[in-house]
Amino acid sequence: MSASIQTPARSPLAPKTLPEIPALDGVRFATGAVGIRYSGRTDVLLALFDKGTRVAGVFTKSRCPSAPVEWCRARLPSGKARALVVNSGNANAFTGKTGAKAAAFTAELAAAAAGLRPHDIFLASTGVIGEPLDAAKFEGHFEKLAAAAAPGGLLDAAEAIMTTDTYPKVAVAKALLGGVEVTIAGIAKGAGMIAPDMATMLSFVFTDAPIGAAALQAMLSKSVETSFNAITVDSDTSTSDTLLLFATGAAAARGAPTIERATDRRLASFKAALHSVLVDLAHQVVKDGEGARKFVKISVEGAVSKTSAKRIARSIANSPLVKTAIAGEDANWGRIVMAVGKAGEPADRDTLSVAIGGVWMARDGSVVPGYDEAPVVAHMRGRDIHIEIDLGLGRGCSTAWTCDLTHGYIDINGSYRS
Amino acid sequence: MSASIQTPARSPLAPKTLPEIPALDGVRFATGAVGIRYSGRTDVLLALFDKGTRVAGVFTKSRCPSAPVEWCRARLPSGKARALVVNSGNANAFTGKTGAKAAAFTAELAAAAAGLRPHDIFLASTGVIGEPLDAAKFEGHFEKLAAAAAPGGLLDAAEAIMTTDTYPKVAVAKALLGGVEVTIAGIAKGAGMIAPDMATMLSFVFTDAPIGAAALQAMLSKSVETSFNAITVDSDTSTSDTLLLFATGAAAARGAPTIERATDRRLASFKAALHSVLVDLAHQVVKDGEGARKFVKISVEGAVSKTSAKRIARSIANSPLVKTAIAGEDANWGRIVMAVGKAGEPADRDTLSVAIGGVWMARDGSVVPGYDEAPVVAHMRGRDIHIEIDLGLGRGCSTAWTCDLTHGYIDINGSYRS
Repeated sequence: MSASIQTPARSPLAPKTLPEIPALDGVRFATGAVGIRYSGRTDVLLALFDKGTRVAGVFTKSRCPSAPVEWCRARLPSGKARALVVNSGNANAFTGKTGAKAAAFTAELAAAAAGLRPHDIFLASTGVIGEPLDAAKFEGHFEKLAAAAAPGGLLDAAEAIMTTDTYPKVAVAKALLGGVEVTIAGIAKGAGMIAPDMATMLSFVFTDAPIGAAALQAMLSKSVETSFNAITVDSDTSTSDTLLLFATGAAAARGAPTIERATDRRLASFKAALHSVLVDLAHQVVKDGEGARKFVKISVEGAVSKTSAKRIARSIANSPLVKTAIAGEDANWGRIVMAVGKAGEPADRDTLSVAIGGVWMARDGSVVPGYDEAPVVAHMRGRDIHIEIDLGLGRGCSTAWTCDLTHGYIDINGSYRS
Repeated sequence: MSASIQTPARSPLAPKTLPEIPALDGVRFATGAVGIRYSGRTDVLLALFDKGTRVAGVFTKSRCPSAPVEWCRARLPSGKARALVVNSGNANAFTGKTGAKAAAFTAELAAAAAGLRPHDIFLASTGVIGEPLDAAKFEGHFEKLAAAAAPGGLLDAAEAIMTTDTYPKVAVAKALLGGVEVTIAGIAKGAGMIAPDMATMLSFVFTDAPIGAAALQAMLSKSVETSFNAITVDSDTSTSDTLLLFATGAAAARGAPTIERATDRRLASFKAALHSVLVDLAHQVVKDGEGARKFVKISVEGAVSKTSAKRIARSIANSPLVKTAIAGEDANWGRIVMAVGKAGEPADRDTLSVAIGGVWMARDGSVVPGYDEAPVVAHMRGRDIHIEIDLGLGRGCSTAWTCDLTHGYIDINGSYRS
């Protein structure tokens, strides 16, 4: 199989500017070009964490997870991390026992180079599924990376983990912890699945805040529900989805209190900042969705529960007929009703209302006679589309984000594998 | 909104020949051009049934069903039918109380013309969602249709209910009932959803067999699971899906026994013939799927249960990444593994095997080294694609059918609404 992959043009939804990226105390980055699959670009990231770094993570719900996902799941209960190794070009997924061995060997090589134990190291891989990962290619590289690792370099890190992403994804936020400023900075790679299969969503978030692993995990698990778990590009779930949150605790030296419980009120600012970073990265992933030309926000209210609202929002966000209508700039509320109906959640046709771009086109189960089409048409021509549903049944609400479904998606995913 | 709809070219998967269509004792058909939405074609079907006709039905699971679906659901408990009225061009869906009135008025007009009671009449509508159906357009038409109704005419019936279908869908089978030949003949219209929303799958099956309503319902509900409920074009569920089975009982005059219980052994031949008609029509719907260039059969075995196998087959059949790979003639088993993994059903990566075109490319969780790619490549270039999954866990098996996802789908569904 050829390693040549055409780089698609930068997504029209890409952020116009990059955030200012501060150095994060307690973490050092290095990137290198190992040649796993690509040439002429970096494809491995090493992040080294100071002693005492705590970690939390959430992973794909796939029943066929990649070897690195299984490796991380086994490491996570310790709550401790000293390094992260990520490669692009090969996902080490559906590679059987060979894959597990390749993951372990990668960790051993990195550990030896950095003076750590393999079990201190977290792993992630993204790229082709089903091809063995030749971990021997890493030999000799981690020594150089460990020597070069330095504060800063988050943008380089974001670039090294790209597969067919059209832009690197970085988000930064500040929070106050006991009156001391701490930093949260994250990177992600997105749903760029291109023949022969790029598997898929990875995100790594770093902070200097001194927070225990249990508290990190509780905050991460909660926040992911309304950020990464509220986006969809094409309803397909990767074998490799990984989100890890590392807290070096270095801000303790500046007076930040060490916090062990997620219910601690002093975490309010941190929670908000963490959520803003996760939402920002999740949006950037959608905006780099394959063939995406429009960013779509779907707000559901009036459902019988929050869970019900979330399922309905997701049903709309995953509907090919809704997504193609948006690509065609067609304010097709009939398809939205269809997607509500198929969600399998409580809905009453005669209390259902639909708005696009803030204009209620259908109220209580019927079209609004003589609604003003002009602002709706103008809205559909824009880059940011907002769909609102009011089920008129209860107080459950939820928001989902997606992109439109265009010829670009078919081009990227339906091209011949060479 | 304009009523001009471009007729797409006949699907390359359309049957090359039509079956011989016999007249069915006890049922008469007539079609007419009322001008609900289209011009220059028929758009209403009237079927008149002899006294004693029994009926069974299954309907969309949408929580936002069309007015005709609600009308039929209310009529079904009687088990009796004397007429069926179907219009194309307007689905009478999401039309509120006006829609219920339009359905009732349609039944009243047809009943008056045919000398029946409105409650003896079954209704179905297909076409645009959310626009009021002007049932007054039917006035004066049903008298002519009732006078013209005659045996035969099933192909005309299939044509009158088309929306953006590229060919009429008819299937016929014979069965023996107590040694007497009976006929089963059905029509369907398919998943031709085109702006602004054609809603959607309708199928009507007719037989002269003398079978009671409860037995018909039991056979229909069972058979639909492995026919219409095993197909998917794009995972979107219509507000209007309707499948009705009418048994006129006219074959009793030729000596066929009247059968009331679905467990009656004399139904064996009838059950097989009914299933063959439903599967044939279901396949024809998929083969007219929007933009379809390839017909895909997905066979799952080795699952922990039949239900689990069905969910996994459906997850593969609905995966945009699998369907675009097939469009690209790419034997991309990694995406198939992804779709198995996301189904949420028990699966063990290390016992999972995948075959395409009869060639096992992955066995027990890893690629088969040196498998012969040539026959796989040749298979992917054909019109009929066969994917097999063996989960290696149990004895559950299931089959699903779908089509590929091509630029044609985006063209049809992403075009501007004029």
